[in-house]
Amino acid sequence: MKLKELIAGTRSYRRFDESYTIDYSSLENLIDLARLSASGANRQPLKYLIYNSPEDCRRIFPSLVWAAYLKDWGGPAEGERPSGYIIILGDKSISEVFGVDHGIAAQSIMLGATESGLGGCMIASIKREDLRKELSLPDRYEILLILALGKPVEHVIIDDIKDNDIKYWRDGEKIHHVPKRPVNELIIKL
Amino acid sequence: MKLKELIAGTRSYRRFDESYTIDYSSLENLIDLARLSASGANRQPLKYLIYNSPEDCRRIFPSLVWAAYLKDWGGPAEGERPSGYIIILGDKSISEVFGVDHGIAAQSIMLGATESGLGGCMIASIKREDLRKELSLPDRYEILLILALGKPVEHVIIDDIKDNDIKYWRDGEKIHHVPKRPVNELIIKL
Repeated sequence: MKLKELIAGTRSYRRFDESYTIDYSSLENLIDLARLSASGANRQPLKYLIYNSPEDCRRIFPSLVWAAYLKDWGGPAEGERPSGYIIILGDKSISEVFGVDHGIAAQSIMLGATESGLGGCMIASIKREDLRKELSLPDRYEILLILALGKPVEHVIIDDIKDNDIKYWRDGEKIHHVPKRPVNELIIKL
Repeated sequence: MKLKELIAGTRSYRRFDESYTIDYSSLENLIDLARLSASGANRQPLKYLIYNSPEDCRRIFPSLVWAAYLKDWGGPAEGERPSGYIIILGDKSISEVFGVDHGIAAQSIMLGATESGLGGCMIASIKREDLRKELSLPDRYEILLILALGKPVEHVIIDDIKDNDIKYWRDGEKIHHVPKRPVNELIIKL
């Protein structure tokens, strides 16, 4: 697949076929993509927790905050929840700062997910202290980002932005629309 | 190309064939990849400056800090400097925070560069105030990251890490070595 197609297909998906099981080895392969990606000063301070069992997924789900712009939607219903998670941690014993390493890693992982027929959502709105307690996560690790993964059951469309309104929305057919700024608005001239 | 191959090929290159000209349209295409990538709360606060002329490249080069671990090397010599730059800006009129948007965007762009036969380096060590003056950059924009691009003339190899030493180094043949941690060290169990 050409990269543009892969990137265009890597939308944020929030509804999944929860009965689908993600192999543990698939999650490991995604971490390998992150491992081979750039890291500031090559410090490689990111660590990963990976989960693919229904029990573990049930432990993580309550710590996630979903889709702020969809006011009438509290997140995916039972049956449509993610069937796997990658939690990206910053290991403070390696570095106190993580720069954008987790953004770089997350993009590699999400592109890899798309390539292997999965989809998901990068989530930064996390009830961090709840999750730390639930997992008994040592202080050494900072919770940076959660990647929720699964077999998407929703359709996501990129629209041209209108009236500078960046809020995504869902239409009557439950199709999720994401307004994106055009290239000529992003490249500025001084 | 499979994604893993593309990611493995997306190394940080710091020496280029400076006589090579990067088309302006190639840089625009790379911005389109960033445009289609995820953005926190879909705010899309990133803006881009793109440069491909020798004159512009000469204006930007002095603001870059190169390869901190190579103590005897002050950066690429004339003839081996980048032939294009993408400067990623945060537009503070859209958002005061940029999260890891620029990490996500930078990874999409660098993967696209590899796909099109280019290579380069994400640079966060920037003499920001010097560059702001040189470009007369309005206060509204924060300088987040510079992507130096060109036709690489160096060979970069990923090594297994030894003695926890993450410093990249150059051998007698000028081959650049990058030690990476193994996957089993990155995935932790609680």
